[in-house]
Amino acid sequence: MSKQRVLTGITTTGTPHLGNYVGAIRPAIAASQDQANDTFYFLADYHALIKCQDPAAVHQSTMEIAATWLALGLDTNNSVFYRQSDIREIPELTWIFNCVCAKGLMNRAHAYKAAVDANLAENEDADKAITMGLFSYPVLMAADILMFNANKVPVGKDQIQHVEMARDIAGRFNHIYCKKEPLLTLPDYQVDDQVSVLQGLDGRKMSKSYGNTIPLFLTEKQLQKHINKIKTNLLEPGEPKDPDSSTVFQIWQAFATAEQTAEMRQAFADGIGWGDAKKQLFGLINAEIGEARERYNDLLARPADIEAELQKGAVKARAISQPLLEQVREAVGIFKLA
Amino acid sequence: MSKQRVLTGITTTGTPHLGNYVGAIRPAIAASQDQANDTFYFLADYHALIKCQDPAAVHQSTMEIAATWLALGLDTNNSVFYRQSDIREIPELTWIFNCVCAKGLMNRAHAYKAAVDANLAENEDADKAITMGLFSYPVLMAADILMFNANKVPVGKDQIQHVEMARDIAGRFNHIYCKKEPLLTLPDYQVDDQVSVLQGLDGRKMSKSYGNTIPLFLTEKQLQKHINKIKTNLLEPGEPKDPDSSTVFQIWQAFATAEQTAEMRQAFADGIGWGDAKKQLFGLINAEIGEARERYNDLLARPADIEAELQKGAVKARAISQPLLEQVREAVGIFKLA
Repeated sequence: MSKQRVLTGITTTGTPHLGNYVGAIRPAIAASQDQANDTFYFLADYHALIKCQDPAAVHQSTMEIAATWLALGLDTNNSVFYRQSDIREIPELTWIFNCVCAKGLMNRAHAYKAAVDANLAENEDADKAITMGLFSYPVLMAADILMFNANKVPVGKDQIQHVEMARDIAGRFNHIYCKKEPLLTLPDYQVDDQVSVLQGLDGRKMSKSYGNTIPLFLTEKQLQKHINKIKTNLLEPGEPKDPDSSTVFQIWQAFATAEQTAEMRQAFADGIGWGDAKKQLFGLINAEIGEARERYNDLLARPADIEAELQKGAVKARAISQPLLEQVREAVGIFKLA
Repeated sequence: MSKQRVLTGITTTGTPHLGNYVGAIRPAIAASQDQANDTFYFLADYHALIKCQDPAAVHQSTMEIAATWLALGLDTNNSVFYRQSDIREIPELTWIFNCVCAKGLMNRAHAYKAAVDANLAENEDADKAITMGLFSYPVLMAADILMFNANKVPVGKDQIQHVEMARDIAGRFNHIYCKKEPLLTLPDYQVDDQVSVLQGLDGRKMSKSYGNTIPLFLTEKQLQKHINKIKTNLLEPGEPKDPDSSTVFQIWQAFATAEQTAEMRQAFADGIGWGDAKKQLFGLINAEIGEARERYNDLLARPADIEAELQKGAVKARAISQPLLEQVREAVGIFKLA
């Protein structure tokens, strides 16, 4: 059996935080080093435009996310790492898919329906502040996936539906235009139930929208300061503490070996003080990301080198996207007259 | 004052007929020869995909329409004549516009609303058989227009709204992204009240959807045969006939000089027979298009020459679309890191 193509998109809004790192980046980078898969990672800047109309922020986020992944050891020789907007074939494929995609399919997309429900709850027009970008985003995502004949798309549960829609669109395209042999590969989603969801400073899921994140590459001083802000209870040093209701312990687990976790569990039972626990947590995280932080800061000072990596990825990606788009164009009747 | 840019799209479905010729092609070709304007004409094959999922038909129609316009004397040195799908920047601009275009704007598009109304009248789901292509087609049309900073878009009355939407989208983009200086030109529609609507074989408007057309470049024999099928009343030769209720006379007018029209009006009063009138009509039309027909058939036998004209147009068009798209990308935050 040939290698599976695994494709992951990263929307270029915001600065990566520890939650992104533990839940998405770290496992993806491990996968990039695994010879069993063909891995594709892309900076989804066309998607970013849906959420962010601040050009400087989109640009800065693209730079920071690219630098983060590279600094953490993404193997760009064993994977394809590219910026979505360098693949000029993607928006064209998106339009072609528009012409086979039922509007009703988009009406049923969760993200759109949630936005409509929120408007209706406020007695507003159902489509208030909803752009065509938000509404048709699953078509773009289908093009992202099908452009590279991806087999597997690792997603959170909220994104399963979008991969199913890409599957629908691929099936519909093949049915209409590829009577002899299907051109597009039907993708499967891959949900990792073991995926680590990190708690944020306030104990809720760490998320930019809650304003409770710990950015990944803070200076040591800032990292310690953020960790000190993690919400704890009022138990004093010496009083036994419940690790399973503690955000400090939850984050500890995400970085610790099994042995270190057992030790910290014991320390909680023994009444470790919060200040001490947080200091140890800082040390643990800092040990894991310290070297990457240096590489990250070094890379940010050399944007041309980041760009060169993205261009290397674009060349590899377009070697796939260009011939596929030509086949798609020919299938729909768009090709040279002679 | 600088030259006005006038932009016209031609959807590549079907074969041009006399109604297209009189109502759209003939005036456009005259405009292409007018040095007062910068004229842009494009074969709208991305639009064709919305209506037509038969690849051979899309391809054939592209060839026939291009050959028709060239055979009729389109001045491709004084105008830009291109195939939409050769301008790879257009679908990308379409996506970027999606991200500034309110979904509510598309909800109000006439063509979409008419399709919904038809579904509801049949007690069907409102969006039955409506694709995302049909729904979002005004965004693509906005990209067609704004990509070339067109000032004027000649349209039928049913298309006024779409030009207004392009104007809205341009204004919105400029407002969000171009604080200092607007990047996109706000287009105006141009409705010619004098536009000739030709009657078809059955007396209704000549239209492919009514199946009552006379294709433009039939052989002489077929042209005569079609003209003979034009519906008339039962009046015999010698009986005076009313020109103003006659399709034969209406078509005559579209091809005749004022003098010829006056003569035919007199002939009707004098009781010209239908057979005779139709024979004269054949002669009049054939005189106008006969040479073009030869050039048309000649061109169809040399598709490489048609393609070369389209490539010449694409080069001229992309000299405008590429730098504009780069400015748009930079405005939204999509550009190289270094």
